[in-house]
Amino acid sequence: MVEKLSADARATLLRELDGWEEVDGRDAIIRKLKFKDFNEAFGFMTRVAIQAEKADHHPEWFNVYNRVEVTLTTHDCNGLSERDEKLAKFIDRIAG
Amino acid sequence: MVEKLSADARATLLRELDGWEEVDGRDAIIRKLKFKDFNEAFGFMTRVAIQAEKADHHPEWFNVYNRVEVTLTTHDCNGLSERDEKLAKFIDRIAG
Repeated sequence: MVEKLSADARATLLRELDGWEEVDGRDAIIRKLKFKDFNEAFGFMTRVAIQAEKADHHPEWFNVYNRVEVTLTTHDCNGLSERDEKLAKFIDRIAG
Repeated sequence: MVEKLSADARATLLRELDGWEEVDGRDAIIRKLKFKDFNEAFGFMTRVAIQAEKADHHPEWFNVYNRVEVTLTTHDCNGLSERDEKLAKFIDRIAG
């Protein structure tokens, strides 16, 4: 069973992360990233995909050309969990 | 300069393609695909990404776990062009 982050842990997380916002009407967070071009955007997505598969926790994401929008939430607890925290921090590290 | 498909060419294309629909309110087409799992879905996306980059014509797409939604349109002509036709047919070939 995956547990939702506590209100405190969630608030701390949002302060620690880089450029993530809460999603309106859903218990989820989103980060909108812009890259130099498609090659760089899809390269980023590939790194996230490999990490996501390894952690068995996958993003919801949209891409067009050099833009990527990543939404994170944990379906098993219907909100944010430690799994989202780990993936969001990985994304922040590689997004630079 | 990229030219929009004629009304005839567009109608023919939509008959030829596999599972594509017109997008409400936009001159674009969408195909919603479902795969066995994330590995298979992202593998498909990677094949499309390489082809898109080669043709310098990129999709707008959304993915969550085993689902991929691909939208095609040509910004340069504000509608469907031969570029979308080629990429849509490539997608149909590899989607099986």
